[in-house]
Amino acid sequence: MTTQKLIAEGLGTCFLLIGVVGSGIMAEALSGGNIALALLANAVATGAMLYVIITTLGPISGAHFNPAVTLAFALRGEHSWRAVPPYVVAQIVGGIFGVWASHIMFDLSILQTSATMHRTGVAQWFSEIVATFGLLFVIFGGLRSRPDAVPPLVAFYITGAYWFTSSTSFANPAVTIARGFSDTFAGIYPGHILMFIVMQIVGVGLAHLLLPRLFTPPQG
Amino acid sequence: MTTQKLIAEGLGTCFLLIGVVGSGIMAEALSGGNIALALLANAVATGAMLYVIITTLGPISGAHFNPAVTLAFALRGEHSWRAVPPYVVAQIVGGIFGVWASHIMFDLSILQTSATMHRTGVAQWFSEIVATFGLLFVIFGGLRSRPDAVPPLVAFYITGAYWFTSSTSFANPAVTIARGFSDTFAGIYPGHILMFIVMQIVGVGLAHLLLPRLFTPPQG
Amino acid sequence: MTTQKLIAEGLGTCFLLIGVVGSGIMAEALSGGNIALALLANAVATGAMLYVIITTLGPISGAHFNPAVTLAFALRGEHSWRAVPPYVVAQIVGGIFGVWASHIMFDLSILQTSATMHRTGVAQWFSEIVATFGLLFVIFGGLRSRPDAVPPLVAFYITGAYWFTSSTSFANPAVTIARGFSDTFAGIYPGHILMFIVMQIVGVGLAHLLLPRLFTPPQG
Amino acid sequence: MTTQKLIAEGLGTCFLLIGVVGSGIMAEALSGGNIALALLANAVATGAMLYVIITTLGPISGAHFNPAVTLAFALRGEHSWRAVPPYVVAQIVGGIFGVWASHIMFDLSILQTSATMHRTGVAQWFSEIVATFGLLFVIFGGLRSRPDAVPPLVAFYITGAYWFTSSTSFANPAVTIARGFSDTFAGIYPGHILMFIVMQIVGVGLAHLLLPRLFTPPQG
Repeated sequence: MTTQKLIAEGLGTCFLLIGVVGSGIMAEALSGGNIALALLANAVATGAMLYVIITTLGPISGAHFNPAVTLAFALRGEHSWRAVPPYVVAQIVGGIFGVWASHIMFDLSILQTSATMHRTGVAQWFSEIVATFGLLFVIFGGLRSRPDAVPPLVAFYITGAYWFTSSTSFANPAVTIARGFSDTFAGIYPGHILMFIVMQIVGVGLAHLLLPRLFTPPQG
Repeated sequence: MTTQKLIAEGLGTCFLLIGVVGSGIMAEALSGGNIALALLANAVATGAMLYVIITTLGPISGAHFNPAVTLAFALRGEHSWRAVPPYVVAQIVGGIFGVWASHIMFDLSILQTSATMHRTGVAQWFSEIVATFGLLFVIFGGLRSRPDAVPPLVAFYITGAYWFTSSTSFANPAVTIARGFSDTFAGIYPGHILMFIVMQIVGVGLAHLLLPRLFTPPQG
Repeated sequence: MTTQKLIAEGLGTCFLLIGVVGSGIMAEALSGGNIALALLANAVATGAMLYVIITTLGPISGAHFNPAVTLAFALRGEHSWRAVPPYVVAQIVGGIFGVWASHIMFDLSILQTSATMHRTGVAQWFSEIVATFGLLFVIFGGLRSRPDAVPPLVAFYITGAYWFTSSTSFANPAVTIARGFSDTFAGIYPGHILMFIVMQIVGVGLAHLLLPRLFTPPQG
Repeated sequence: MTTQKLIAEGLGTCFLLIGVVGSGIMAEALSGGNIALALLANAVATGAMLYVIITTLGPISGAHFNPAVTLAFALRGEHSWRAVPPYVVAQIVGGIFGVWASHIMFDLSILQTSATMHRTGVAQWFSEIVATFGLLFVIFGGLRSRPDAVPPLVAFYITGAYWFTSSTSFANPAVTIARGFSDTFAGIYPGHILMFIVMQIVGVGLAHLLLPRLFTPPQG
């Protein structure tokens, strides 16, 4: 594993959090309390950013930007276990820098802690399992059927998933941790982060058990 | 026909209903009575999901997720009649599971019956004929001209069709039945399901009569 | 020229008007007076339909659906002059049927005459010149650089052009005539149709003069 | 360098400003003070136009439409320094014509000076650095990984960047200057233009220093 890969993972996750947190701040500021409109802008901006960073950085690092994805590749034997910790660290650090960059761009205090208290409860935890399972379904299904379509697949999936899960589909431990550092539209109270990550790992486990039976090699 | 195909049809239709019903619940909850905004989010999320499931599962099962599509392929001799009933059962069961998963994700009672009474009348019945005819036009026209474009074709068609038909284009008997199990934005009163399905079958019949004259083999 | 081509032009233009008029009716009905939201839904549905009909019918008839486009191809010597009148008739007839189908789908009187009086004036006339010139720029530029991208090019162009022209970019005499038959969101008062068509033809003339100097053959 | 290239740069930037300014006027007029909705339409129309002009004109001039991009290509040795000034002049002149065309299309005074005073301050300046760095990241990353995807990459990036930067991502000196000529939604007070351009050039410098280490040749 090269430093280049880690820079790609860090920079990509940084851009991803700019897409998520920056657009959330703008959308909330302009929407005058119309949450549906704010979420629509937030979802479109996030999807657009995902398309961009997966297309440009995919050939360099694989474009995970997500410890759950890195873990899933490791479980499949397609990412060395030794390379998991540096990837995860790069993703988390990059994500936090993305949150801070967003705060600077919107003239907010850089260091924040989220006080958003509604991201908890069984319904949202179940949502995170579904969201993460679905994300891995999309990635590994896409890699099997149309590898060149993985960037739009993930982008469209997450744009939709903002709407069809009650948690708005974090589906990514690095994103979840980073969003704890922002007391804005996209924030999550730090005390609620752990359960989200546990559920995301459950989603990885389910995907690891079930997807290989569905996406057998094309010859199968 | 393998079990793998049936799992693909069931899982894909499950995801489709999560896209339709889950995003409808979220959109209605956030839109504060602004139905146009709710329908826009609902349409975008549904189109995104269709793109995802057709791309990933197409190579496995053909990605019907719709008894009307399975019937149309059987009428063309491209899907064996014996394989129609298991496909249809998988689609209906998968769809109902998708509705239930959506209810769990949004902390609603799992078992519901829709009390949405406005999905009836001649205008909506005619809409379902047009919507289903159009869906088959898109699928068979796309398979003839650009098979790799079928996923975006269906996704964009349905995103638009939410708006240009008064029924919001169910165009799918499995989706219609499953939506009867949800007393939410996307619901349909069970007593109104049968006429929707009859009209969808009329759309299949019209498409079977007319499309072969338009989409003759490229050499024709 | 075969009957199949004329059916393709008629059916495609019929679908196009369903996309334009049907979504306009739905959007206006649901938007509660929020015209920006109605136009956004209208623009998205129209773009989605354009992508679909150009992709599926392009290989059959060339997917003009627009007398201005047919005229432009004839001026370039790429469509026989004898084949212009039947194409134009098919487009106009198909478009009117699309309007009527939309009225049936929304439970409105089938035969209507638009009383929408604001689609006139120098600003909108100039808009129609720009819109039509731009449409031909997109088509002939796309055919030169990326022929397979013409469907998304036209779809995205028109989705944007709903917003960046004051006329919302009819850019199509058949669409203009057909919209005279609908007293709904997308309507145009019949007395204002002629000037729109004149301006669209001016746009064709300008494009015919200027575009060949820009889009010389790749070897040029 | 041929005249054809300069015409392409001028016409493309003209269309780009029509997309930005025209849609801004329409969106503000229709949105009844709902700025989030206006910005959403503005962002969608701009992204649509970018996709169109980069796809059609890329093979002719490289589709810069942006002095920052021309400068970045020159720094990489992929655009001759002698060809920089004519490109930049064509972009600025084309952009101003695009603003004027938009004013005519919306029945406004042609010659205007923007009185929009809020486009200044450290947060927006930092946003322009990030926005321009990101644009060059997208272009050079895309050229390395998927050159045919550069048009959608830039289009989606800018559509998102309207939302995730506080400046709405001008990221283009020609666009910045031209928008000074419009006292509408997209305007910028002329006294604030210089700092935006300085920041955009800083973004070019950062990209020139950092991107070559990330996007090494594929063999690297």
